[in-house]
Amino acid sequence: MKLVITNTYEEMSELAGNILLSYMMSQKKVNLSITGGRTPAKMYEILVPKVKGQDFYKKNVTFYNFDEIPYGNSNKEGYTITDLRNYLFTPAGVPEENIHVLDESNYKNQDALLRERGGLDMILIGIGADGHYCGNLPYTTKLFDETSKVIMEEELRLRVGKNHFNAPEEYPDYYFTMGPRSIMNAKHIVLIANGKEKAEIMKRVFEGPVDENIPASVLPLHPNLTVIVDAEAGSLLSEEIIKKYQ
Amino acid sequence: MKLVITNTYEEMSELAGNILLSYMMSQKKVNLSITGGRTPAKMYEILVPKVKGQDFYKKNVTFYNFDEIPYGNSNKEGYTITDLRNYLFTPAGVPEENIHVLDESNYKNQDALLRERGGLDMILIGIGADGHYCGNLPYTTKLFDETSKVIMEEELRLRVGKNHFNAPEEYPDYYFTMGPRSIMNAKHIVLIANGKEKAEIMKRVFEGPVDENIPASVLPLHPNLTVIVDAEAGSLLSEEIIKKYQ
Amino acid sequence: MKLVITNTYEEMSELAGNILLSYMMSQKKVNLSITGGRTPAKMYEILVPKVKGQDFYKKNVTFYNFDEIPYGNSNKEGYTITDLRNYLFTPAGVPEENIHVLDESNYKNQDALLRERGGLDMILIGIGADGHYCGNLPYTTKLFDETSKVIMEEELRLRVGKNHFNAPEEYPDYYFTMGPRSIMNAKHIVLIANGKEKAEIMKRVFEGPVDENIPASVLPLHPNLTVIVDAEAGSLLSEEIIKKYQ
Amino acid sequence: MKLVITNTYEEMSELAGNILLSYMMSQKKVNLSITGGRTPAKMYEILVPKVKGQDFYKKNVTFYNFDEIPYGNSNKEGYTITDLRNYLFTPAGVPEENIHVLDESNYKNQDALLRERGGLDMILIGIGADGHYCGNLPYTTKLFDETSKVIMEEELRLRVGKNHFNAPEEYPDYYFTMGPRSIMNAKHIVLIANGKEKAEIMKRVFEGPVDENIPASVLPLHPNLTVIVDAEAGSLLSEEIIKKYQ
Repeated sequence: MKLVITNTYEEMSELAGNILLSYMMSQKKVNLSITGGRTPAKMYEILVPKVKGQDFYKKNVTFYNFDEIPYGNSNKEGYTITDLRNYLFTPAGVPEENIHVLDESNYKNQDALLRERGGLDMILIGIGADGHYCGNLPYTTKLFDETSKVIMEEELRLRVGKNHFNAPEEYPDYYFTMGPRSIMNAKHIVLIANGKEKAEIMKRVFEGPVDENIPASVLPLHPNLTVIVDAEAGSLLSEEIIKKYQ
Repeated sequence: MKLVITNTYEEMSELAGNILLSYMMSQKKVNLSITGGRTPAKMYEILVPKVKGQDFYKKNVTFYNFDEIPYGNSNKEGYTITDLRNYLFTPAGVPEENIHVLDESNYKNQDALLRERGGLDMILIGIGADGHYCGNLPYTTKLFDETSKVIMEEELRLRVGKNHFNAPEEYPDYYFTMGPRSIMNAKHIVLIANGKEKAEIMKRVFEGPVDENIPASVLPLHPNLTVIVDAEAGSLLSEEIIKKYQ
Repeated sequence: MKLVITNTYEEMSELAGNILLSYMMSQKKVNLSITGGRTPAKMYEILVPKVKGQDFYKKNVTFYNFDEIPYGNSNKEGYTITDLRNYLFTPAGVPEENIHVLDESNYKNQDALLRERGGLDMILIGIGADGHYCGNLPYTTKLFDETSKVIMEEELRLRVGKNHFNAPEEYPDYYFTMGPRSIMNAKHIVLIANGKEKAEIMKRVFEGPVDENIPASVLPLHPNLTVIVDAEAGSLLSEEIIKKYQ
Repeated sequence: MKLVITNTYEEMSELAGNILLSYMMSQKKVNLSITGGRTPAKMYEILVPKVKGQDFYKKNVTFYNFDEIPYGNSNKEGYTITDLRNYLFTPAGVPEENIHVLDESNYKNQDALLRERGGLDMILIGIGADGHYCGNLPYTTKLFDETSKVIMEEELRLRVGKNHFNAPEEYPDYYFTMGPRSIMNAKHIVLIANGKEKAEIMKRVFEGPVDENIPASVLPLHPNLTVIVDAEAGSLLSEEIIKKYQ
């Protein structure tokens, strides 16, 4: 584990972007998975002008969605892929053949496909204040799970629906996500977090026990984990942990 | 994960030995950790004549003990290092400076030292019918633990004592072990098992949920795990799992 | 560079075979290229019974021919692939889809295909007393060459023909080979040699200057080269070189 | 080989800097070697404010000088290390223990030391219009050379002296450099170039034969080479080469 505490959110964004760019300009084919949501907003803002118009960043990379929340009662593309298209794929001109969506038709095959293609080289994830990452929300997936369809109970359905969609008729009953096992099987995990509201969970995850219902608490077991947080998100981490892993 | 089911114990031993030899003849310095106990007996029998007298197998390798059971009331070297000396180090002529023991004086520093030296390149472990590996016995270490001193309660003390020592006055009160986190942080984990008495636990570990008290159940989360079992130990694994990971 | 000098040809064969087997049981897809000819005869003899009937050795591996000498005036498969089929592919049951032949129809695309598929993970080669490896004979290919069709002048045509074919009408006018550049681009090169008649060239290659017309003399520039020779082939190497690279 | 042609010198500098930063924030110890001279001036200008005050960029990295031109008749530190100190080490606060100089006292041991420590993970080099890189000037070192002391003939002595020193009494008689073999043994080579005056040599190196006296012409044989040039330096490269390697 490598723990990087930056002074600012902007710096966190730059560093995470650099890692992503290093993979994107790899000499060999790479399989990457990247996060949507609010945390990486600045990172994508920095990346788009760099990647746009530069084929060397696109030739060898395939992006695999690590989760997907479909629109209820609609054929529209799901929430996550729409987010990633808006952030990066469309403005930076990532060709369609380099994008691998996740949906009902292919989720059962996602892990086998990735194994067949050499596995994920890097997955860039965020974390929720509740310890979720990707679609691994507390009390949904289990540590042993690979890519799954998660059927939501009503309370969760409403919560997820409200967070991601405008109209209640768009709230889906289920979503798809790579499970903890699929994600731990990536060769490199990069976790980013910023803001005070992430400080507690960072301390919990990196200084507390592994708990299946605090999903991110398993991540410190990965042999190649890079954690990049801004000063606020890292503010509760102990000196001992910082010294050990910086 | 790569799952290899061999026809015989001898074949399991050969394959595991080959992996170990490949690391030992590495061009660069490698940090390895290897298991004692009954499972690898044949493997070491095969290895000794190959390694003996061949400096190219020794020049770049350092062996780190992953656990140690000290003798109670005695200054004798511990049970594990004695086992490894008898099996491999002494008959094969591994120089003392390539051997890193684990004991009271250094266990707190084992993880930092390994981080400093680039981490374990490979750890070769066995598994108990109860799901333990290294000194991670059920209800002792936690998933988050790094290298630790485990103080045994009386029942465990007697059980461990009887299994490893002749005289009750030799039974120790504690032992040392790399924790799940230390082991998951190795770049490559190789797990070997043979015999009918391991068939149940193999099924449990590779087809069931992660459970902190079935310690080996966390291993499938590792991105680079090779499992080598003979036909008996693999006899309860489902066709699906075999096909997926072979 | 790692230099391994074994006591016997048998031991050389075992060690090279172990490296090959370690790649063949890889968790991820691997691209390998292996040599025919006399040097590896014993190695294949050792490997066949191990690989036969074991799917875990075949599932993730593709073998790419690194050279091919076609039969003149004939549609028969070429000399090299026939050699490899006889040695390994047929008796060990390597499925046809794991074998990538090299011929007139595809040689121009061999390098692009390998780049597309992540490159050769390992190439196992022999060496001639004249310093040739693969089809890189002195005064044929240049160091910069990728996979090429080599048109032979009459003297070479007769020499190559006599060495490989029974009837003069089978002597071809050309052959195909991965060039020095293609081979240096592999992630790991393993070079094997045995017998007194290889002692001079081993000394020349590993202790003398790089010379385009002693093709193997470029190999020491590779960052990940393993050289395995028996005592006879290594008999002229200086103590200094042995100590440095063993 | 990966070929990246950027629009501007600034962009070349940013990309090379990103690669360097990615290594510097590695989880494990890394051995790096970086270039002085004019080409990287902008890169260091970009890097210094990022690296300054951030321990996570320094904890795991050791910088090894790949060449050194000592001052004649003086005990002053050599030209290269002074250059690197001015550019990066001093303003960015790289601790002295992370810097490994190259001089009379240690050059014979540089290759052994690097082998002992796992080799160079990455070397960042520039290129001269004459095809030199590091201290491998035409007609000085040979492809097979490891780290060497190069005694300069008078003509070269004057040329090198004038380029690097103010007063003729400071012109040295010799310099030190990692040889082609030492550099080809690095795990990753990153080559940067900018400006019209580098366009010819780029074409020569990447489209012409290997020639010992155009030292950089051997670099395309390396299995992991990243070339980053601005539009001017890349202006003579053929469409075919660009398409193949971008």
